[in-house]
Amino acid sequence: MKKINIGLIGFGNVGCGVIKILQQRKAFLAQKIGIEIAIKKICDKDTTKKRDVLIDKSLLTSDANLVLNDPAIDIVVELMGGTTLAKDYILSALKKGKHVVTANKALLAEHGLELFAEASERGKNIYFEASVGAGIPIIKSIREGLIANKFSCVFGIVNGTSNYVLTQMSDENCTFSTALSAAQAKGFAEKDPSLDIQGIDSAHKLVLLTYLAFGRIVNLKDIFIEGISHISLADINYAKELGYTIKLLAIAKKEGNELEVRVHPTFLPQEHLLASVDGVFNAIYVSSDLAGDLMFYGPGAGQLSAASAVVSDIVDLTQDIKAGLFRPTLNTVEDNLIKGLRKIDEFENKYYIRIMAIDKPGVLAKISGILAKYGISIASVTQKEKLKSQVVPVVMITHQAKEKSLRSALKMIDKLTDIKEKSIAIRIEGV
Amino acid sequence: MKKINIGLIGFGNVGCGVIKILQQRKAFLAQKIGIEIAIKKICDKDTTKKRDVLIDKSLLTSDANLVLNDPAIDIVVELMGGTTLAKDYILSALKKGKHVVTANKALLAEHGLELFAEASERGKNIYFEASVGAGIPIIKSIREGLIANKFSCVFGIVNGTSNYVLTQMSDENCTFSTALSAAQAKGFAEKDPSLDIQGIDSAHKLVLLTYLAFGRIVNLKDIFIEGISHISLADINYAKELGYTIKLLAIAKKEGNELEVRVHPTFLPQEHLLASVDGVFNAIYVSSDLAGDLMFYGPGAGQLSAASAVVSDIVDLTQDIKAGLFRPTLNTVEDNLIKGLRKIDEFENKYYIRIMAIDKPGVLAKISGILAKYGISIASVTQKEKLKSQVVPVVMITHQAKEKSLRSALKMIDKLTDIKEKSIAIRIEGV
Repeated sequence: MKKINIGLIGFGNVGCGVIKILQQRKAFLAQKIGIEIAIKKICDKDTTKKRDVLIDKSLLTSDANLVLNDPAIDIVVELMGGTTLAKDYILSALKKGKHVVTANKALLAEHGLELFAEASERGKNIYFEASVGAGIPIIKSIREGLIANKFSCVFGIVNGTSNYVLTQMSDENCTFSTALSAAQAKGFAEKDPSLDIQGIDSAHKLVLLTYLAFGRIVNLKDIFIEGISHISLADINYAKELGYTIKLLAIAKKEGNELEVRVHPTFLPQEHLLASVDGVFNAIYVSSDLAGDLMFYGPGAGQLSAASAVVSDIVDLTQDIKAGLFRPTLNTVEDNLIKGLRKIDEFENKYYIRIMAIDKPGVLAKISGILAKYGISIASVTQKEKLKSQVVPVVMITHQAKEKSLRSALKMIDKLTDIKEKSIAIRIEGV
Repeated sequence: MKKINIGLIGFGNVGCGVIKILQQRKAFLAQKIGIEIAIKKICDKDTTKKRDVLIDKSLLTSDANLVLNDPAIDIVVELMGGTTLAKDYILSALKKGKHVVTANKALLAEHGLELFAEASERGKNIYFEASVGAGIPIIKSIREGLIANKFSCVFGIVNGTSNYVLTQMSDENCTFSTALSAAQAKGFAEKDPSLDIQGIDSAHKLVLLTYLAFGRIVNLKDIFIEGISHISLADINYAKELGYTIKLLAIAKKEGNELEVRVHPTFLPQEHLLASVDGVFNAIYVSSDLAGDLMFYGPGAGQLSAASAVVSDIVDLTQDIKAGLFRPTLNTVEDNLIKGLRKIDEFENKYYIRIMAIDKPGVLAKISGILAKYGISIASVTQKEKLKSQVVPVVMITHQAKEKSLRSALKMIDKLTDIKEKSIAIRIEGV
């Protein structure tokens, strides 16, 4: 039986998962693919840490060159994370004629263009199924299963930590910080959770989804990113009352000949399938012109879930190697109807607005007047119960409005002497 | 550029969709895969019918041999349907060294073993992505994306017609026959809808899902199949009241060392993701040991949706052909922990029961007595409002009970003089 050797760089949580699967499913995979996948070398800066998988000690090294320079290694699996050393290693692996599997969304989001170009030039592949939605085969589905399709939008819940926090706030009726602490206690949020809750991790994944659906690598700095740390329990509850759920969505959407690429908390109608995606689960919704609207759902993180995707990439590469094939489905075709990215100011959305106003005659008239002046029309208004402080929340749902107009209007409203807190606006999608 | 020729047999609705896509996306696909896909021959018994796609008339023939015997044709796409001629054509194509794409679930469900064996012997592939869930890449996902996984269950809504009817009954508060007429009027149900509403089509698809997840081709006659025509509006509404939705599910589930394979209407908790899958949409839920619980959702039918899947299969075959590769991910590995199929009598479920009883003292005691005698314990009972007829529905939810015991108990109950209609039992899942 043909044997294909892999070298692993990064023997952390997911790395251990990959080794476990390759050990435990060795015969199972060989029976399916007719190829033996052998672990030739494992590199990690820490070679002494106790890990939850048993390996032959001689496989372990702290010197990445022993992986990169080993001519017997066909596939390099990069699971170390980071965007500097990891990048060097991947480039070096490609230059040395190796195929690459990575789960490193940050790296691909920042340097994908360079890395994919290098791979293409060398006739090698970089597969990255685990980088979005862990074990959900979303990348293979878009790239291969939907290969004949053009897409109008891809959006989803791609960060389990944020989704867990929002679900927790809603289910337990607790504040953001209480929910975040719960997430940390359960291991669903890092000690420093900023990448997740600020929407950066979602943006990394969105770069990859946008690339797959529209053939274009978007610069991270061109993505509008808003996290969830300003979401209050009050907004979660008003959303519920109004028939919505708040989710952090990553959205890439074709509007005319422009592409909108953005990450932000979103009001989703409770009937929308994505609204029922709770806890650390992820789901990606895809609108395609032939296959229609599809959704892919599953756990967004987890050692074995991510490792499952990494192993499926390894298996695909074994087939490419066996066939001497540069798998062309890697090729994305840029949607040439897209002339550029839409600027945030030009986004059009319906909005949920919450304005904290002193409850006295004429305030609502002033607010409505300002909104009207900016061409923002109101679909519904609810003035909430009076609090002790005489400040009442005025909750509105707008019709479609331009972001720029909305922001200008809110700025003006917040200057009114009767307004006592910064007003909140959350975009509404899926209606 | 390498050119790969396809021959199409069956120029109906989906066939026209395939030709449309191959025409309109010719350059798009070529750019992605580096291969030109050419239509060499189209066969249909009707060569004169007006179709919604323009083709070179010389491509069209009513003689399948012109496809099967053409050495220039690399891939035969069978979209004629039926299980006799289609089978002969596919076997003949394989014997002549051609790869095959089909959407014919009935054929594969009945003769899959023979067809896959022939393909394997010839080193050719049969791809069938369109046969389950139309454009949803569920087959590729299980087979390739989740290749390292073992499965504990696969279940889903795989028949759009039945799901439309059930959704319609629930949304419009109408009877089964009214809902079915609506489905027929919209083209979502055939004039003779029996294959769909009796659960046969779901069972065909279940054979394929079971094959993919557990490596075993189950005999259609060994599948427990119950359709939806006996579902009454009353049951739809009681389900709602109790927090459930009724869906026709196709279920393959490992229980101990046995496999349960069954199609029947099911009470699903309203919070379950599948409960929100409405109308003609399909969704398949998969429990895997590494990637966790996944769901794949999308339109379950439609010309372009199914054609999208057929074209993705054609593209995969072009790669196999280019590489001279018998794609080994076709290989399924039989789960050898499974010793056999569980008989329906041995199934264990929670049940919804509706018993139509005359409202007089002692009736409930008699019913409960019989259930207790058969070891069936009751989780909740609601005795509904009295109707003019003095007959009241007694609605119960049971704890886990054996099908055999339940059936015996209901038979006994239905013999009571105070019981005026055949009692209804619907299985509860997902709890």
